[in-house]
Amino acid sequence: MSPFRTIRVGIAGLGTVGAETVRILRDAEPDFRRRLGATLELAAVCDRSIEQKAAELGLARSVRRYRSAEKFAADPLLDVVVETIGGLDEARRLVLESLKRGRHVITANKRLLAHHWGELFDAARTAKRRLYFEASVAGGVPIVETLRRSLAGNRIRRVLGILNGTTNFILTRMARTGEPLKTVLAEAQRRGLAEKDPSLDLSGADAAHKVAVLASLVTGHWVRPQAVAYAGITGVAPEDMAYATSSLGRTVRLIGTVDLDWSAKPPAVCCHVYPTLVPLDHPLAGVQGEYNAVLVQASAAGDLMFYGKGAGAGPAASAVVGDLFLLATEMMAGPGQDAGVVWRREGEMRVTDVGESVSAYYLRLDVRDRPGALSKITGALARRRISISRIHQQTSDGKSSVPVLLTTHPARQRDFLSALSQIRRLPEVAPRHAWFRML
Amino acid sequence: MSPFRTIRVGIAGLGTVGAETVRILRDAEPDFRRRLGATLELAAVCDRSIEQKAAELGLARSVRRYRSAEKFAADPLLDVVVETIGGLDEARRLVLESLKRGRHVITANKRLLAHHWGELFDAARTAKRRLYFEASVAGGVPIVETLRRSLAGNRIRRVLGILNGTTNFILTRMARTGEPLKTVLAEAQRRGLAEKDPSLDLSGADAAHKVAVLASLVTGHWVRPQAVAYAGITGVAPEDMAYATSSLGRTVRLIGTVDLDWSAKPPAVCCHVYPTLVPLDHPLAGVQGEYNAVLVQASAAGDLMFYGKGAGAGPAASAVVGDLFLLATEMMAGPGQDAGVVWRREGEMRVTDVGESVSAYYLRLDVRDRPGALSKITGALARRRISISRIHQQTSDGKSSVPVLLTTHPARQRDFLSALSQIRRLPEVAPRHAWFRML
Repeated sequence: MSPFRTIRVGIAGLGTVGAETVRILRDAEPDFRRRLGATLELAAVCDRSIEQKAAELGLARSVRRYRSAEKFAADPLLDVVVETIGGLDEARRLVLESLKRGRHVITANKRLLAHHWGELFDAARTAKRRLYFEASVAGGVPIVETLRRSLAGNRIRRVLGILNGTTNFILTRMARTGEPLKTVLAEAQRRGLAEKDPSLDLSGADAAHKVAVLASLVTGHWVRPQAVAYAGITGVAPEDMAYATSSLGRTVRLIGTVDLDWSAKPPAVCCHVYPTLVPLDHPLAGVQGEYNAVLVQASAAGDLMFYGKGAGAGPAASAVVGDLFLLATEMMAGPGQDAGVVWRREGEMRVTDVGESVSAYYLRLDVRDRPGALSKITGALARRRISISRIHQQTSDGKSSVPVLLTTHPARQRDFLSALSQIRRLPEVAPRHAWFRML
Repeated sequence: MSPFRTIRVGIAGLGTVGAETVRILRDAEPDFRRRLGATLELAAVCDRSIEQKAAELGLARSVRRYRSAEKFAADPLLDVVVETIGGLDEARRLVLESLKRGRHVITANKRLLAHHWGELFDAARTAKRRLYFEASVAGGVPIVETLRRSLAGNRIRRVLGILNGTTNFILTRMARTGEPLKTVLAEAQRRGLAEKDPSLDLSGADAAHKVAVLASLVTGHWVRPQAVAYAGITGVAPEDMAYATSSLGRTVRLIGTVDLDWSAKPPAVCCHVYPTLVPLDHPLAGVQGEYNAVLVQASAAGDLMFYGKGAGAGPAASAVVGDLFLLATEMMAGPGQDAGVVWRREGEMRVTDVGESVSAYYLRLDVRDRPGALSKITGALARRRISISRIHQQTSDGKSSVPVLLTTHPARQRDFLSALSQIRRLPEVAPRHAWFRML
C-alpha cells in the first residue's frame, strides 16, 4: 500500500505566484487525486497580509493561516513546503528549517539557490528530503526536470539561454521600432513587464542567477553567482540594432551561457551573461517579446531548444504545481532517495575565468573625426592580435564625433577588453561606447 | 534501504537505436551508479543477428544473448525490458509478456502504441508495472515526460507538432531551392534522411501515429490511429512554395494537431495531420531540416515549444536512456504506483470528425483558360458559404491550362472538401491539384 492518503502542502508567500499556485492546485485536485491515489491538500499558508489574501482566495477555514514564516515553519503537520516569499534571508531560514523538520521543499527562488546552493542541498541530503526548483529558471518551461532526468544519459556541452523576459521584450521591441531603450522600458513598465526599479533585470544580474542555477545543476558542483560574469543591456542603442540587422544579418539578445569542457582535467565550466549578436536564422533570434528559451547542446540528443513564457504568475505556478505533482508521485512510490540532482559530483571542476573564453565581438565607439583616429584604434586591436572582420564609419555631417562600428574575428575576451581599455584612453574616443559578444 | 542494488536491463532489437542505447548506457553507468546507489546492468540482449551485433558492440560474455524474442521474454532475471525491435506483432507479444512477467517496459515504438494503447496500458496496470515511451515521439525531445508530469497542473488546449523529420527536411529544402519533391527526396535518401520506401513518412502515416500517441497521453483516452485524419506532402509543388513565401508570407509544414475542447460535454478531441501554411514568423516556421518541434498550448504555462532532432540513433537512444534513468529512480524510491500516464480518465471523450474542424485553406488548381471557369469555381465555394480571401491566376502564355491559387476564409473542412469535390468535377479543372490547411 502507498504510504500516504493525504499529502499536506504549506505555501509561504501568497504573492502572484503563490496565489496562482493555490488556484491551480484547487482546480487540478480532483484529477491529481485520481492519478495519485492520494489528496494533495492545502493545509497551511503564510503571508504578511494573510487575512486579506485568504479572503481574496476564498480559502476554507480549515487551512491554517500564519503571518510569520517562523511560526509557519513550525507547523507540525506539513509534508511539503512551497517557498514563494522570495528574497534571501527569510527564505533561506524557511527552507533550511523545513528540510530539518522533514518536509520536502519546492522553491521558485533563483537568487536563494544561486547564493546558498551548497548549504541547501547539503541540508536536503542530511534530512533525506527533496528540494525542487523548476520555477526558478525559465518560468513555465520544464528545463530543470529535463536537465535533471530526461537528458541523464547525455553529457551537456553547452547551455545557451534567453533567461530574462523583461530584457527580451525590450530588445525585440527596440529592434522592431527603432526606439531607444528609455522609451521601450517605459512601455514595458506600463505593461507590467518591467519592475518600477528594473535594475536587477537590465543589469543582467537576474539572468546571471539563473545561469548559476543551471550551471550548478549541470555540473554537479556549486557554481557561485560571483563566478558568472555578466553585463546588461543598458548600453544597447538604436544604432546597434539598425547596424546589426541591416549589415550583419543579426539581432541583439541577452544570452546566458554555460560552457562545459568535460575533456579538460579537471573538467571546466565557464559561465556568463552578455548582450550578444545572434544570427537572424538562429533559433534564439526567433524568441520574441517576454518569452524565454533555453538551447541545450547534448552529446547524444544533439541540439534541443525549450521555449515558453519565462515570467508571470501562470507559468511560474505551473512549474511549482508540476514539481508538487512530481514530488507526490515519488512520495507515493516510497521513501527512497532522490537521484535527481547530482550534487557534489566526485572530483574537481574548474571554473574558467570569462577572460579566457573566446568569442567574436562587436564594438561601437564615438570617435572624434581626426586624422589618425582609426589607425590608433585598429592598432590597439592589432597589438593584441585581434583582427577586424568588418568596420564601418559614418560620415561626420559636421558633428564633432561619429560612430565607428566594428566586428572582430574570434579572440580571447581578456585580450579584447584590454585592447578596449587602451582604446578608451585615446583622446579621440568619447566615453560613450558599447560592446557585445557574437554567437 | 533501497530495494535494489542492481537493476537488470534487457534490450530487444540491436538496430541503430538499440545499439546506441547499449553504448550510452555503458558510458553513463558510473555516473548513474553514484546517482542511483544501484547499478543499471545490461543483463540480456536479443537480435536476429545476435552474434554479429554482440561482437560489434564488444559485449561482455556475461550478457545473455538471444536470437528469439520469445526466449528473451522468458529470461528469468530481468527487471526492465527495452523494446527496440519495431513492427507490430512481435513487439506487442514481447511487451505484453514482459509486463506479465513483472518487468517494466520501455518502448520507442509509436506504431505499437498507437494501435494497442488500451491493451498495453491495461496490461501494465494489471501487472503494476510501468510502460515508458519517450522515444516514440519527437526523438530526443522529452515531450512525453513534459506532458505526463511537468505540465500536470495545466489543461492542455492544443498540441501542434512537426513530428516527422524526413518530410520537414524535404519541405524546408524545397522552400530554399525551389526544386520539386522528387529531386529533394532523392537527396534525402542519399543523406540517409529518408527510407528507400519513404511512403510511411511522405503519406503522413508516421506523423499520424505520433499524433495518436500524444492525443491518448493528453486526453487519458485511447485515441485510435483511425481517428487521426491525415494527408501527406506528395502533392506539394514548387509553385506552392513560391506563392506561399512571396505572396502569403508563409511556408509549408506538415503539422500534426491535437485540438481539445474541455468545455464541451463530453470533452472533445480532434486529431489530424495535414500540410499546412504557417506564417513565416510563427515558431514552427523556424524549424528547419530534419528537426522536430512540438508546440503546446497550456492553460497556466501558456504557449511552450520544444524542439530537437526527431530521428537518428543518438536522439532516440537518449530518450530511451532518459526513461531508463527515470524508471530506475522510481524503482529505487519504492514499489508504489505509476501516477504518470492518465489512462482511462473517467467520463467520456468524444472524437470530433475532422470534417467538423474549422480552418482557412489554400487551394491550387490547374484550370483550362476558358471564359467562365473562374466563376464556376468561386460559385462552388460560395454555395458552401466559403468566402475567398485571395485569388491569383497566372497568365496562360499559350499553355492549355493555368494554375489558379486561392486562399479561403475559415470554413468547416466538410464544406470545403465538398466544394472541392464539385470543383474537381468541372470540365475546366484538370485532375492535378493541391490543398493545405492554414494556421
